[in-house]
Amino acid sequence: MLGSTHGTLTTDSRRALVIACGEQRTGPVVHDRVADLDVGGRPLHADVPDLTRFFRPGSVAVIGASDTEGRPSTGITRQLLDWAGRVGARVHPVHPTRSSVFGLPCAATVAELPEQVDLAVLLVADPLPVIEELAEAKVKFAVAFASGFAETGEAGAEAQERLAEAVRRSGLRLLGPNTNLNAFERFREDLSGPAIALITQSGHQGRPVFALQELGIRLSHWAPTGNEADLETADFLSWFAEQPEVGAIACYIEGLKDGRSFLLAADRAARRKVPVVAVKVGRTETGARTAASHTGKLTGADDVVDAAMRQYGVIRVDALDELQDTAALLARARPPLAEGVAVCSISGGTGAHVADLAAGAGLRLPRLSPEKQAELHQWIPEYLSVANPVDNGGHPVGDWRGRKIIDAILADPAVGVLICPVTGPFPPLSDRLVQDLVAAAEETDKLVCVVWGSPAGTEPAYREVLLGSSRVATFRTVGNCLTAVRAWLDHHRFVTDYRSPFEEAPRTPSPSSRKAEALMQPGRQLSEHAAKQLLRAYGIRVPREQLVTSAAAAVRAAGQVGYPVVMKASGAQIAHKTELGLVKIGLTSASQVREAYRELTDIARYEGVGLDGVLVCQMVEQGVEMMVGVGHDDLFGPTVTVGLGGVLVEVLRDAAVRVPPFGEDQARAMLGELRGRVLLDGVRGRPPADVDALVEVVLRVQRMALELDSRIAELDINPLMVLPRGQGAVALDALVVCR
Amino acid sequence: MLGSTHGTLTTDSRRALVIACGEQRTGPVVHDRVADLDVGGRPLHADVPDLTRFFRPGSVAVIGASDTEGRPSTGITRQLLDWAGRVGARVHPVHPTRSSVFGLPCAATVAELPEQVDLAVLLVADPLPVIEELAEAKVKFAVAFASGFAETGEAGAEAQERLAEAVRRSGLRLLGPNTNLNAFERFREDLSGPAIALITQSGHQGRPVFALQELGIRLSHWAPTGNEADLETADFLSWFAEQPEVGAIACYIEGLKDGRSFLLAADRAARRKVPVVAVKVGRTETGARTAASHTGKLTGADDVVDAAMRQYGVIRVDALDELQDTAALLARARPPLAEGVAVCSISGGTGAHVADLAAGAGLRLPRLSPEKQAELHQWIPEYLSVANPVDNGGHPVGDWRGRKIIDAILADPAVGVLICPVTGPFPPLSDRLVQDLVAAAEETDKLVCVVWGSPAGTEPAYREVLLGSSRVATFRTVGNCLTAVRAWLDHHRFVTDYRSPFEEAPRTPSPSSRKAEALMQPGRQLSEHAAKQLLRAYGIRVPREQLVTSAAAAVRAAGQVGYPVVMKASGAQIAHKTELGLVKIGLTSASQVREAYRELTDIARYEGVGLDGVLVCQMVEQGVEMMVGVGHDDLFGPTVTVGLGGVLVEVLRDAAVRVPPFGEDQARAMLGELRGRVLLDGVRGRPPADVDALVEVVLRVQRMALELDSRIAELDINPLMVLPRGQGAVALDALVVCR
Repeated sequence: MLGSTHGTLTTDSRRALVIACGEQRTGPVVHDRVADLDVGGRPLHADVPDLTRFFRPGSVAVIGASDTEGRPSTGITRQLLDWAGRVGARVHPVHPTRSSVFGLPCAATVAELPEQVDLAVLLVADPLPVIEELAEAKVKFAVAFASGFAETGEAGAEAQERLAEAVRRSGLRLLGPNTNLNAFERFREDLSGPAIALITQSGHQGRPVFALQELGIRLSHWAPTGNEADLETADFLSWFAEQPEVGAIACYIEGLKDGRSFLLAADRAARRKVPVVAVKVGRTETGARTAASHTGKLTGADDVVDAAMRQYGVIRVDALDELQDTAALLARARPPLAEGVAVCSISGGTGAHVADLAAGAGLRLPRLSPEKQAELHQWIPEYLSVANPVDNGGHPVGDWRGRKIIDAILADPAVGVLICPVTGPFPPLSDRLVQDLVAAAEETDKLVCVVWGSPAGTEPAYREVLLGSSRVATFRTVGNCLTAVRAWLDHHRFVTDYRSPFEEAPRTPSPSSRKAEALMQPGRQLSEHAAKQLLRAYGIRVPREQLVTSAAAAVRAAGQVGYPVVMKASGAQIAHKTELGLVKIGLTSASQVREAYRELTDIARYEGVGLDGVLVCQMVEQGVEMMVGVGHDDLFGPTVTVGLGGVLVEVLRDAAVRVPPFGEDQARAMLGELRGRVLLDGVRGRPPADVDALVEVVLRVQRMALELDSRIAELDINPLMVLPRGQGAVALDALVVCR
Repeated sequence: MLGSTHGTLTTDSRRALVIACGEQRTGPVVHDRVADLDVGGRPLHADVPDLTRFFRPGSVAVIGASDTEGRPSTGITRQLLDWAGRVGARVHPVHPTRSSVFGLPCAATVAELPEQVDLAVLLVADPLPVIEELAEAKVKFAVAFASGFAETGEAGAEAQERLAEAVRRSGLRLLGPNTNLNAFERFREDLSGPAIALITQSGHQGRPVFALQELGIRLSHWAPTGNEADLETADFLSWFAEQPEVGAIACYIEGLKDGRSFLLAADRAARRKVPVVAVKVGRTETGARTAASHTGKLTGADDVVDAAMRQYGVIRVDALDELQDTAALLARARPPLAEGVAVCSISGGTGAHVADLAAGAGLRLPRLSPEKQAELHQWIPEYLSVANPVDNGGHPVGDWRGRKIIDAILADPAVGVLICPVTGPFPPLSDRLVQDLVAAAEETDKLVCVVWGSPAGTEPAYREVLLGSSRVATFRTVGNCLTAVRAWLDHHRFVTDYRSPFEEAPRTPSPSSRKAEALMQPGRQLSEHAAKQLLRAYGIRVPREQLVTSAAAAVRAAGQVGYPVVMKASGAQIAHKTELGLVKIGLTSASQVREAYRELTDIARYEGVGLDGVLVCQMVEQGVEMMVGVGHDDLFGPTVTVGLGGVLVEVLRDAAVRVPPFGEDQARAMLGELRGRVLLDGVRGRPPADVDALVEVVLRVQRMALELDSRIAELDINPLMVLPRGQGAVALDALVVCR
């Protein structure tokens, strides 16, 4: 529905890797280690291009430079000259017919450049013919502004692929096409402290983050990635995560070129504890993409993006104002000393309201100790509640007591964050309060936030005092303050516990995969019996069962399996057995088994369903019905889904998804995301289910997803009966479709 | 967890009504009609106090006036004098020991006032002794600033009740106690057009809405209701809804004094098509209040507030910035001419992002017709998408083409709203664009919104041009723009179709209620059999069933009921029958029935459960299991809940609630709120369920809730088996606890 303005950015990561590793590269690439692939052939490591000379080149060639007034390229040339002057780069204009541009000597061709340049900026309409010349001149980086590529449709996409191919051959690294001058903006040099690095696929959408500098927040870099024919969001993400001045990375993403490279970059940022905040367009495609007919597809593509980002600690926000406020806080705030939030206001109403919203946002407001409350009541009248939220009543913060109150709250070991909403500024109180907050923030390692609620925002206390402080985090809305504080706490919790799942991802096929090979029937759906054999190959428990082709054999099988039994029609193409009446449960005698055999074969004949026999299965009751499935996402490859099982799962869509590789922690976290989670804990006197066994099944299914990705199109275990704790989990039915 | 700063505001509406109607009132009350009660004894009409002389008094007495510098009452007296001067009211200071205050002659007592005054402002610490004097002097309104009442605890609440009692006897109407000067603020007189009227239970929380005047948005009134000993939010709501200058009413509510009076006021506003936007604190109490053990309590109190507000068209928002932006839009925007939203931006990225968020917010972006697109392509390059979102590419809006583009979009009959996000202002383009938008908005009845995304907000195009227009709705965030536009469309849709449910609420007991009387067992839980007889009395179908006390009688009953049968232990105090093994289903023969009888009575003996017999019931299959229940909310009285039935309902909490009275439209809307709604539509080849029959049961249960509210503490039908379309719905089990 919503087209990316930069064309479809999905490619196959494996091919990209083969190209990246299989050829000698002359460009400035830091090879971390040799090619490292998981068992599914996906990279476990990505190279980080060294972009130092892109952002701070010693010399720049401007191809197609102009100083003829009124031409767009003249304006661009002028901006580049300004920028080069600021960063100390030598500029070499290149133009076939000019001898000088803005007084600088102009080379006729790239070959005639007086030195090997770091960066070539291409102002020409068609960058393709220039690439080879640049490569010969050993230019490290190029930027192509030209548009008319993938963003315009199929012909443009083909032209872009030709350009990308030329770039891959050349060894230089290209930003663009369809990008702009944002990387060469005038950044404020007077701001200090950790900075935001910005990556956007649209110049206009990055503008308000860039404009944060007007509010005193430092920006270090801006990468407008455009169509990403070569350099992509992930490259900048990885490199920014290694720059010491970068406190947070803010991204505006419309489409990802490659899911895996993005995750590898996010992993790098997580390991380096650098927060990444991202807007990713595409929320409302979820509905359209949600596959209705099978449980493994319950989580649509946007849910996959969402899950993938969460797995790697990328903080996803919806709107640009949230991106600004969250990135600004995460860039500048120190790690939390405690997770408790205190709210302090001149009004009990404001305190109650903000506390309500904060709790709703998942923040914890600890009740202050009686001692702390007594301390606060030295300065705050007894009749006001100071348990948290702290109602200071107004007057005390208009004089010397204000600073005492602030310091006392900040000194509480349970408090890591102080939020002061100034809903309606009242200068006699709020000017003093704001000064005290700014002064207190200078002397604490805890986080001090102010929400300046006045709609005008022209008040000196806001403009001059609050925005003048790099220690107080100032917001204009309570909502954005809470979103940012929550993200800040989540980020630090995440990176503290983070272990890269790429380290532990399987590299070599398991013995199971060889057994699995023998069961594959390319292009076909496996019979239930065969599907269960596949599960057994991966150590997933299935009921005792036998496939029989006569009533007499059924009775014999039932005796061996043990009564009561379940009988099911078995065949390669049967779906929705229950609805067709092709399942009989709770059979307790030979006569019932004989009768059931006749009925099942009758129905199958009537419905025209081909059978390879009838399954006689052990009946498993007294568990929680779950489902575990494998899906495939265009961007991220195989996915693993777990949810409530049975017929209801299709209706209620209570499922969680993850992108492999992931560890046991994420498998457990998936269960926490289910609304029906309490079913596993035991409701109405039922025993708690064997969650450990369920987690183990999820991890084994992940292994299948990785090892068999190229062989299976679909895999769903539904229901997986999770027995009471200590008794395991049994796959009662499974659907497997081979590629 | 979150204490209201104004004490508990819950009272019994019936008592309040008896008092209101049973006594001669001397105060300025407009009696709409005589007391009108529903069958449950709750009012169907509320009086609207005439507050004209409160907001615009001819004369004001200031009790406890002072002009001694440094005293708080002196500041207040001065502000009141200023305000009285502006509104043209005569001021009469009253003080026992002063002869004049600020040069005005001062009366020693109220009795000595030179004229009958409209409004008395009480600056005294204890307003109680003054009330009688004021009544004798025939004062119409009083305002009490004193604090120390219900907001301080139990003793304060008692003092407040004494004050309220004195006020009720007196006939005057009181604002407060624990209120402030907000009603007497300096409102900007230079602003025109429909205004916001503001009601707040906290002065500080109203401040940013009041400050909207700095952005050019008109405010007409501010009612700071404080502790609401007498006049409450509902009174102001009703009266504001009748004032011609009021375009929207904005409320900040911590607790409601009375649920019914609030709904009657909201009903009045809905009938008059006046939008009401409210923040109601208390979101996070939901979890705590949610009753876990019975289905009728699945929707906690905050869910009830939420439902009640939606039923009467009150737009609930979370934060004050949303309150400001939504109220401002609703006050000023004309009714929509179409529901389609068009997005137009200088960047394809911005358009895609805003369109994604808009669709996520439930707005509809119609694809523009090929003719309209061709028209737009006269001014916008061919390669840019103008289907909606319209990517104008930037340059066209920097010259004469901008206005053409805007007018062409606004002329599209499918478009009712144009949203122009200016994510990053670029003065050469955006200044001209903004001027064109302001000019175009003057000449259209359609809604024009601008989202000014710059974090600074100091740009002249924003401060001077946009804020200077009363026709363009200007926002600082996309989120608030979409929230407000959605609320505006919802409001107009709601009031267009609105029929007051109070008009059709039952006033007299149904014949069913007399049958119900006979079944009641005060203080006890009814047996399943008795509970089903109660349902039958209200025309709700139950299975054929007989209560038996011997195995032989059970076999006879099964023959009469018809095989297969279900057998259940029946007794007054049995809950969770299924878990105890006290239900046997699918019995197909006399021997099975005999066996089941023995088993059930054995288990009951073993579990120590007293039986009044065993129920032999018709077995009903092939339907959708739902639940319908009655709850009781402290604020709103009886509630009706419908949700997915069976064991899962407790786990998944998929239920919708309504506060009676409500009509068939709301009963149908409840079903639309269920995640499991698709189950009723028929999934996996099942036939659609008889939704009409389900709606009918909901309405009959509502009737029970209204008629039996004083007799039953709890009522749950679970499961209600909803059969295929045309076949009705059958209550398979019911729990009724009498008061």
